[in-house]
Amino acid sequence: MAKLVYSFSEGNKDMKPLLGGKGANLAEMNSLGIPVPPGFIITTEACRQYYENRNVFSAKLKQEVLTHLEEIEKKLGRKLGDNYNPLLVSIRSGAAVSMPGMMDTILNLGLNDQSVLGLAKSSGNERFAYDSYRRFIQMFSNVVLGLDHSAFEKILHELKSEKGYEQDTEMTAEDLKALVESYKDEVKNSSGSEFPQDPHEQLWRSIEAVFKSWNNNRAKEYRKIHNISGLFGTAVTIQSMVFGNLGDTSGTGVCFTRNPSTGENIFFGEYLKNSQGEDVVAGIRTPKPIKELEKDMPEIYKKLVAIKDNLESHYKDMQDIEFTIQEGKLYILQTRSGKRAGIAAVRIAVEMAEEGLIDEKQALLRVEPNSLNQLLHKRIDPAEIKNREPSASGLPASPGAAVGRIVFTAEDAFEWAEKGENVILVRTETSPEDIKGMNAAQGILTLRGGMTSHAAVVARGMGKCAIVGCSDLTIDEKAKVLKSAKPAKALKEGDWLSLDGSSGKVYFEKLNVSEPELSDDFSKIMGWAKEYKKLGVRANADSPKDAETARGFGAEGIGLCRTEHMFFEGDRIKAMREMIVSDTREGRKKALDKLLPMQRKDFVGLFESMQGLPVTIRLLDPPLHEFLPKEEIDIAEIAKELAIQPQELKEKINSLEEVNPMLGFRGCRLLINFPEIAEMQTQAIIEAACIAKKKSGAEVEPEIMIPLIGHVNELKWLKEVIRKTVESVLKEQKISLSYKIGTMIEVPRAVLVSDKIAEHSEFFSFGTNDLTQMTFGFSRDDFGKFLPQYLDQQILEEDPFKSIDQEGVGKLVEMSVALGRKTSPKLKIGICGEHGGDPKSVEFCHKAGLDYVSCSPYRIPIAILSAAQAALKNPIKPENK
Amino acid sequence: MAKLVYSFSEGNKDMKPLLGGKGANLAEMNSLGIPVPPGFIITTEACRQYYENRNVFSAKLKQEVLTHLEEIEKKLGRKLGDNYNPLLVSIRSGAAVSMPGMMDTILNLGLNDQSVLGLAKSSGNERFAYDSYRRFIQMFSNVVLGLDHSAFEKILHELKSEKGYEQDTEMTAEDLKALVESYKDEVKNSSGSEFPQDPHEQLWRSIEAVFKSWNNNRAKEYRKIHNISGLFGTAVTIQSMVFGNLGDTSGTGVCFTRNPSTGENIFFGEYLKNSQGEDVVAGIRTPKPIKELEKDMPEIYKKLVAIKDNLESHYKDMQDIEFTIQEGKLYILQTRSGKRAGIAAVRIAVEMAEEGLIDEKQALLRVEPNSLNQLLHKRIDPAEIKNREPSASGLPASPGAAVGRIVFTAEDAFEWAEKGENVILVRTETSPEDIKGMNAAQGILTLRGGMTSHAAVVARGMGKCAIVGCSDLTIDEKAKVLKSAKPAKALKEGDWLSLDGSSGKVYFEKLNVSEPELSDDFSKIMGWAKEYKKLGVRANADSPKDAETARGFGAEGIGLCRTEHMFFEGDRIKAMREMIVSDTREGRKKALDKLLPMQRKDFVGLFESMQGLPVTIRLLDPPLHEFLPKEEIDIAEIAKELAIQPQELKEKINSLEEVNPMLGFRGCRLLINFPEIAEMQTQAIIEAACIAKKKSGAEVEPEIMIPLIGHVNELKWLKEVIRKTVESVLKEQKISLSYKIGTMIEVPRAVLVSDKIAEHSEFFSFGTNDLTQMTFGFSRDDFGKFLPQYLDQQILEEDPFKSIDQEGVGKLVEMSVALGRKTSPKLKIGICGEHGGDPKSVEFCHKAGLDYVSCSPYRIPIAILSAAQAALKNPIKPENK
Repeated sequence: MAKLVYSFSEGNKDMKPLLGGKGANLAEMNSLGIPVPPGFIITTEACRQYYENRNVFSAKLKQEVLTHLEEIEKKLGRKLGDNYNPLLVSIRSGAAVSMPGMMDTILNLGLNDQSVLGLAKSSGNERFAYDSYRRFIQMFSNVVLGLDHSAFEKILHELKSEKGYEQDTEMTAEDLKALVESYKDEVKNSSGSEFPQDPHEQLWRSIEAVFKSWNNNRAKEYRKIHNISGLFGTAVTIQSMVFGNLGDTSGTGVCFTRNPSTGENIFFGEYLKNSQGEDVVAGIRTPKPIKELEKDMPEIYKKLVAIKDNLESHYKDMQDIEFTIQEGKLYILQTRSGKRAGIAAVRIAVEMAEEGLIDEKQALLRVEPNSLNQLLHKRIDPAEIKNREPSASGLPASPGAAVGRIVFTAEDAFEWAEKGENVILVRTETSPEDIKGMNAAQGILTLRGGMTSHAAVVARGMGKCAIVGCSDLTIDEKAKVLKSAKPAKALKEGDWLSLDGSSGKVYFEKLNVSEPELSDDFSKIMGWAKEYKKLGVRANADSPKDAETARGFGAEGIGLCRTEHMFFEGDRIKAMREMIVSDTREGRKKALDKLLPMQRKDFVGLFESMQGLPVTIRLLDPPLHEFLPKEEIDIAEIAKELAIQPQELKEKINSLEEVNPMLGFRGCRLLINFPEIAEMQTQAIIEAACIAKKKSGAEVEPEIMIPLIGHVNELKWLKEVIRKTVESVLKEQKISLSYKIGTMIEVPRAVLVSDKIAEHSEFFSFGTNDLTQMTFGFSRDDFGKFLPQYLDQQILEEDPFKSIDQEGVGKLVEMSVALGRKTSPKLKIGICGEHGGDPKSVEFCHKAGLDYVSCSPYRIPIAILSAAQAALKNPIKPENK
Repeated sequence: MAKLVYSFSEGNKDMKPLLGGKGANLAEMNSLGIPVPPGFIITTEACRQYYENRNVFSAKLKQEVLTHLEEIEKKLGRKLGDNYNPLLVSIRSGAAVSMPGMMDTILNLGLNDQSVLGLAKSSGNERFAYDSYRRFIQMFSNVVLGLDHSAFEKILHELKSEKGYEQDTEMTAEDLKALVESYKDEVKNSSGSEFPQDPHEQLWRSIEAVFKSWNNNRAKEYRKIHNISGLFGTAVTIQSMVFGNLGDTSGTGVCFTRNPSTGENIFFGEYLKNSQGEDVVAGIRTPKPIKELEKDMPEIYKKLVAIKDNLESHYKDMQDIEFTIQEGKLYILQTRSGKRAGIAAVRIAVEMAEEGLIDEKQALLRVEPNSLNQLLHKRIDPAEIKNREPSASGLPASPGAAVGRIVFTAEDAFEWAEKGENVILVRTETSPEDIKGMNAAQGILTLRGGMTSHAAVVARGMGKCAIVGCSDLTIDEKAKVLKSAKPAKALKEGDWLSLDGSSGKVYFEKLNVSEPELSDDFSKIMGWAKEYKKLGVRANADSPKDAETARGFGAEGIGLCRTEHMFFEGDRIKAMREMIVSDTREGRKKALDKLLPMQRKDFVGLFESMQGLPVTIRLLDPPLHEFLPKEEIDIAEIAKELAIQPQELKEKINSLEEVNPMLGFRGCRLLINFPEIAEMQTQAIIEAACIAKKKSGAEVEPEIMIPLIGHVNELKWLKEVIRKTVESVLKEQKISLSYKIGTMIEVPRAVLVSDKIAEHSEFFSFGTNDLTQMTFGFSRDDFGKFLPQYLDQQILEEDPFKSIDQEGVGKLVEMSVALGRKTSPKLKIGICGEHGGDPKSVEFCHKAGLDYVSCSPYRIPIAILSAAQAALKNPIKPENK
């Protein structure tokens, strides 16, 4: 029968499944000759057997634990519970996969009313001994006995206020002795039993508590949510205690082998003489730079530098190392790969690859794609917000930072910006009418809407910071005042506001912002990523400016141009409205004729900036009422402009009103009722392509995309209209041109009949925003009302508009790909929903056999890196590809 | 090689695939010794060969046609194109399956400038001869030469006005001669060639035209839409002409073997002496009852009676027979199964079964389920609307008829009705607040909404006539006026209005209405249907009254009780509103406590009326804002009632407002955020079940249904809440009770994870209304804007809210059944969407392996009959069952 307990010398870093992450790394360090306090590990297998054996420890386990304990006792010349020279140990859980929040830890185990005296004597520090004891009682009571922290906190608080102490450190040994007695009374009162004095009872009850924590609801739920399965239980690491608070030759610290903020290859860390880890964490004392250690204890420092070099080259990654110095002796308590800022991740990966420590593939896998956001956007100076409470929080819809003065209307945003003011546009929600103002603002804050609301989508497209769905705040539109509830505060027009679009935090003050800077390292990572990725990466871009930005970031075409965004400026919106109020085809055509040259010009710009790369242009998608005014005063003005009676305009607006616009008269439904719109747009696209081709001589690849197809007959009908228009333009222009006509797949029904649709469509592009809305039945504008509860209750693991819901929406994507390629094996398939820029979703798209993803310009680098990682993690493409 | 042409004596009624429906029946009659004018049939196979042979007639076909033609000529002693005794023939298309609208017919073929003289002479009737000739020219020109009717109509019109004639019959032989000349000129001018004088050319060009009509776009589209495949082409029947307009010993008529309106087994028909079929159809002369024939020509009448008896007993179905008497000789021109009114269909089927002519199964298949609507509802006196133009048309949302005075608000409807007035409630659209008024009205008319809009669903549930989406009309709410555009007319409050809910027609006047009457025959048919059907049939019923009605019609339980409808009366809506405006769980519970006894009482009523049959109760589904007022004045009043400030209520209303309520905060989402609602409703259901069980001693089977589940975690979470409440009530009541907790399947995502959901759900009930909305992305409240265009353009064959979209939504249903039964093989599965009462959808549900359908009470008989027909047509149930 296999061993159930391993000493550190018997394990190594690859034994995480058996020894847990923490234990395996301790064993590894031990093998490397790095000084770790002696200890041993109870395996995950022992935990499994404990459960199988109806929660009873086997004789074998008991025996092995005692044997290993004796070994440590012998090595250290201390004994658990010894009255003179007691051994104190820590008990820590540790599964194969990190499960933060379920880890239970007990320190200083082995103390009792007798051994505390021994510790006081052996350490020569009575205060230290009783402080350790009282901490142990509290931890044990909480973790093992299940008693509440707060009772102990209350006793401590009473003692301090009685004595007039501010800090824990003011307590004397006598105070702590009294505290220990009060703590023990509390244990007896609450649990009905005395605090256990037998160190072996303490030990076994602690082991049992850790075993049981594996199957508490929190841990089970965590594993379910994170799809952690196939694990049997948690390992338990038992290790002798070391103390950094035994005088000036002691200390404790945390260090990183490279700078985790910048990535610079210099030794980085903090250290505090005569202290415990807790002191640092609790912020009671301020740690000093690691350099101080060199001054204080040059020998130790030298050793530490040697160890960190050893660990980094051994683990081939930047390490986060915890150490303690006890009376002139250095111990390493933990090593693990260190968390790092985005800019640091890139620099470390590139430099390690250049140093030959890792190869390019490893380097690519070392950078969390979303962390690139920090490189691409402005951010609020981290020092400014370190200890600052935000005034409100919303959804982090578009990363970056913005600081400016509040305005409440798009018009004001534009006017103030014209005058040189930095402004933040604050709205209940935005609509397409607000685009001009959004463009002029530094950032956008809305009170309603989700991650794919209008404000969110548009802001991401513009690369502009936005926070949406910030329901903590209220707006008094008349008074032009923005109010927060907790703390109650009100800002009026012109007051300063700061937004952190990456965290969703809103600050009612003016903070400092730092500019983004793209390093050479970033370019190198991008270069490598392009080599390894299999997916194409295109941009969702609605204007030549967006297209330029996207091209700069490496976009390989445009996957989605939303033509409606072109209709909101100046004369265009007027012509659009003229069209809408026309009751005849002739009237509509007359208005559309005015729009034609403007659209054509935009498209020429797009084609030129894409230099021959494919450009997918979606025909008009939103319902017409989005183009009409809502307020009485605007109606009057626009009626005048259109030379009709306000009443007539009002009636038109009423007749277009919809109960559920999302499921209403839009997309191909609109185009089938008003084919002249499709004709005008097609004409503009093809004429623009002809112009661009003639100008540059290079090929131009327009892809005309029809939105909201649900039935193959819709597609066939519109395709005929479009095809006829294309052919007539090409005939007139006397030019040949390769073009495609394809469809969005965004209505669930389209998925179900993808085989039929593929017979008539030259490409598919998944509109996963709408597909998610309809598959879940979640309106993206409204689901902010119940999403928080859903996330709290873990009904949903994640916002499905942020990362694709693989179980549901993903199943539809896979079904559509399979059906589509069944009738059209070479069908080109992409995704143009917001998910196209989400790393997990990109990996899903890779696995589903898509040809490309398309995302907003500022997410292009993230998509490229994600695509490379997906290819590296999933080297064999699925068969349907 | 097989024959390509059959004489009538060579065919029979079972040869429809080869000879077409018309030809096969003519051949059958010929074999029965019934006098039909001699003729022959070109087979569908000949048509196929013609297409295969690149549109060229084979020598074999030419030869066979000529041979058969000569046979007729010999038999009749007339010759095609003969100058003295010309043979005239009719050419008719006829496929195996009736394809109305693509049938081309040419009469009087064989006439030319010479033979017309022969016809004049041989008939002794010059006027008749030229009239026949001019009709032939017009028909041939249209069908064969593709010339437009209107040119000929214009010439005719000019001639008549020149002469001052009102009627065609006033034209003299000379007039008609002139007309023939003008027609021939028109042919020459329009087609560039003379009108063909050679009768054989006329014949072959006509045959070719009929062959070609098989593959015109209209016919191809028709076959595609009706899923007609596997047919090769059309047959062509060529038959000698007979004339009923050759004097007083001639005549023409149509008769039915039984009364097609009442089903009574008496000879029924109409006849007109000295006339042609066209005269009757055109309404120029009024035909007389068939009894006149007995008086006019007793011998002929006797023969006709013998023939009709023969045909009915031969075909074993009521026959629709066309006959012509030419100079004292009777000819039968056509026989086919006759169309009949619903009441007649039932009576005929039952009586024929009782006569032993057919068996019960055949009888069941003889009644079109939807035709039962005529038996179950009032209807407008058919004589009243025969020649009356409706003032407007909308969607026929709920059958029946209603006549009453117009009111524009639910309050007025209620008040006027209290005073004894019959009223029609006219609204732009209805909302749950209007229920009381809808209940008080005779009928409901809305200007917006589709077949499953609120007004439609509620009206069907009440068995009340409703027309919805009547966009031809406009309402001026302030002035209380209803306006129609064409003809322009306005009705004010109190004016009379009549609705025909079965056709969707609206009449701006007071018409007569006849009451429904359920016959013994109806009960018999229902009894037989129950024996043969496999599907259970339940009712969607929200009140004890609905439940009683449904039970009376044979419902086997309640498949859907929408509890929200119980919240709209008197004190209930007040308590509901109190709950909504509460900001705390305690406040909500206090308000819910007031609702508890009312809900409990309703449920007791439901359980009692269902006498132990299963009752499925759906927990609260609609968004909360549906319960709050919309108008400023109501807000003020209700704020007062609730003892809060109007501003506070307004803010609450604003905060609940949604962009897309259909996809918003409703169903299980609401229940998860406010579990106290689920708790109260569960408590009411289970307490009511306990009361009903104690009272009656019989078993009670409550089935608690959770709406809008999309993720298994939603179900698990709520099931736990419900289960706990149930157990606590049962413990308190000291009673045991079998109950089920199940889910609606109405969100596409639920379909995709049905395997997981089935592990936690004791039944599935498809909510195909919402499933259709989300699968298509069609808001049922809004899609009236584009549906007409979709139906016109044949993009959709049918309104998918009326009959289930089998290709898309149906695929989801099948997928869900398969996945659900994979993890839970005995899972009980039903449907409670509006489709549960649609015959085609019921057949689909049978084939998909569902256990039951549930529909509104007044559709129960239709569902029962449909289920029986489905079982008879699909005797073997699918394997997954």
